Amino acid sequence: AQLALEKDYETHRDYETRYRVIMEAARDALVLVDVASGRIVDLNSSAAQILGAEADTLTGSAFTQEFEGRRRGEFIEGLVLAAGDEASGPVLVKTRRGKLDVTLHPIVFRAAGDKSLLCRIESTKSAETVAAELS
Amino acid sequence: AQLALEKDYETHRDYETRYRVIMEAARDALVLVDVASGRIVDLNSSAAQILGAEADTLTGSAFTQEFEGRRRGEFIEGLVLAAGDEASGPVLVKTRRGKLDVTLHPIVFRAAGDKSLLCRIESTKSAETVAAELS
Repeated sequence: AQLALEKDYETHRDYETRYRVIMEAARDALVLVDVASGRIVDLNSSAAQILGAEADTLTGSAFTQEFEGRRRGEFIEGLVLAAGDEASGPVLVKTRRGKLDVTLHPIVFRAAGDKSLLCRIESTKSAETVAAELS
Repeated sequence: AQLALEKDYETHRDYETRYRVIMEAARDALVLVDVASGRIVDLNSSAAQILGAEADTLTGSAFTQEFEGRRRGEFIEGLVLAAGDEASGPVLVKTRRGKLDVTLHPIVFRAAGDKSLLCRIESTKSAETVAAELS
């Protein structure tokens, strides 16, 4: 059993590395939020840039506080509901630090028993929006 | 030691889940390639779509064979070199199945001792390219 566990351990170390490489390689702004506490578990540098602070400062802080006029309970709950409902579309918010209009595209998943949210943050005036408007 | 290993195991199970969620949540087309064998270790559905086959079919197959007129040794080696050289820019290739012109943006990393490549595949006529051309 010890050996099997060690082999698994190797494999999972591998996933940690892959996870970190992909977080930074993706051009999407990605934030991971723990649903129970509402705190930011991890985020990539694109997301930190949009939120207007260093990733180190943001990790562990309340996700809700990064947006204007939102209350924690209903905000996080709203994201969980939006994630489960294809028809609801993205959630529109304004960042607190930079006053940027952005959309949040949430996905809910479970890891190690805890409910987590992965939010893709999209600046509403991205190159893609511009291209879509022009097409 | 057993207990510590089990706790780590939990944590790393977590990373596997996060890795899988992010692979699919990212809008970027991402392919993971083992450098030694040149084979596709994993890819997301955006990447499978660009390469023109099912992800299941592509997983485990030779990455080089997905592109026209490329030889394995020099192709994979070229991607590793391009990854290490900021100035070299992306690698231009044509997909074998769909004859699409795409660029490969490689990153090299080590996981569990093996050298791996993460390639972001970008269709040369993406919305972003169009927006960049228009701006």
